[in-house]
Amino acid sequence: MAAWGERLAGVRGVLLDISGVLYDGGEGGGAAIAGSVEAVARLKRSRLKVRFCTNESQKSRADLVGLLRRLGFDVSEGEVTAPAPAACLILKQRGLRPHLLVHDGVRSEFDQIDTSNPNCVVIADAGEGFSYQNMNKAFQVLMELENPVLFSLGKGRYYKETSGLMLDVGPYMKALEYACGIEAEVVGKPSPEFFKSALQEMGVEAHEAQRRAPPGSQG
Amino acid sequence: MAAWGERLAGVRGVLLDISGVLYDGGEGGGAAIAGSVEAVARLKRSRLKVRFCTNESQKSRADLVGLLRRLGFDVSEGEVTAPAPAACLILKQRGLRPHLLVHDGVRSEFDQIDTSNPNCVVIADAGEGFSYQNMNKAFQVLMELENPVLFSLGKGRYYKETSGLMLDVGPYMKALEYACGIEAEVVGKPSPEFFKSALQEMGVEAHEAQRRAPPGSQG
Repeated sequence: MAAWGERLAGVRGVLLDISGVLYDGGEGGGAAIAGSVEAVARLKRSRLKVRFCTNESQKSRADLVGLLRRLGFDVSEGEVTAPAPAACLILKQRGLRPHLLVHDGVRSEFDQIDTSNPNCVVIADAGEGFSYQNMNKAFQVLMELENPVLFSLGKGRYYKETSGLMLDVGPYMKALEYACGIEAEVVGKPSPEFFKSALQEMGVEAHEAQRRAPPGSQG
Repeated sequence: MAAWGERLAGVRGVLLDISGVLYDGGEGGGAAIAGSVEAVARLKRSRLKVRFCTNESQKSRADLVGLLRRLGFDVSEGEVTAPAPAACLILKQRGLRPHLLVHDGVRSEFDQIDTSNPNCVVIADAGEGFSYQNMNKAFQVLMELENPVLFSLGKGRYYKETSGLMLDVGPYMKALEYACGIEAEVVGKPSPEFFKSALQEMGVEAHEAQRRAPPGSQG
């Protein structure tokens, strides 16, 4: 393995994942992963630019940053790239009004979005919100549209909580894709557009960036 | 369109689907589809053999036949080929002990099956039983197996109830396939083995049979 100095030659910025890299979610909010608080602090003291790029879609950015700060991380809301704000931008640009199947914790990110008479569906990691009734409602909304549009905030298979593995949004995206015979548009990792927007916000080109994601993750 | 006499030349038996062909499910059990009670009666008066071949997996065969008889159909339990009994046969043959994610109405079909210390998962149209918690449990059981085996009783996308379209087992099968990176074994339509067993039970070869399924169905 090359020394860090060599591996980082030409690198100007670092994109850090959050769940599974900085902390594992779970009871009471979760726990910082050993060494990660200090690693972030060291990166911030270095010449490198740092940005946090997450598919977290159970919490608003404000709530996520609040949790991370309580765990000891030096992070502010403006340093976080997350799928819900990216989705809001797309919805506004394309004049779409979503039916939302999302966790209550992230609903506030959509406060400025018109959700009347929906002409698309947005799903995110809804956790317990992925009831049969809620999934069937999202399915029925899609089937009533002439041109069904489904956005999925990420497409992760599962994630780790302190209590064990948990189904992420990806399996539910696949379920609706199969039920309706459509393909979802993924907002968030691993979509290249999402990474590009994170780099833009950091002011760094792709070849100048180094990314750190959890092993086996979709992004 | 050829006359029926011509179309049925050489045909010795008829496989009839049940849901969406004989009746639509819904409030109070559902309603017979116009003309279907008389059509079954005419077939039974004819020289043709008749068998009912269903992916219904919310009800035991006894409950299904009870419902059909109340709706006026001439049908007995021994005339019905259904996925749950077919799955039980496979489980016994292969020495598998299932974790069941099925509707309470069909659980009695598995009364003779050992479900301790599960080494596979069986899913069927569980309706409201497809909660996040139940899906996550099935997922966790699969992920803990060295060789995860998933059986799906059918793989229909959706079905029609009098109240509207309802998600079938197929989307949930796709969800678990994606989450675990595996492929399910489908028991029921459109599996060729399932049709063959129905024909065997009727004593008819495939080229001698005519099938009637709902438009757009998976089987």
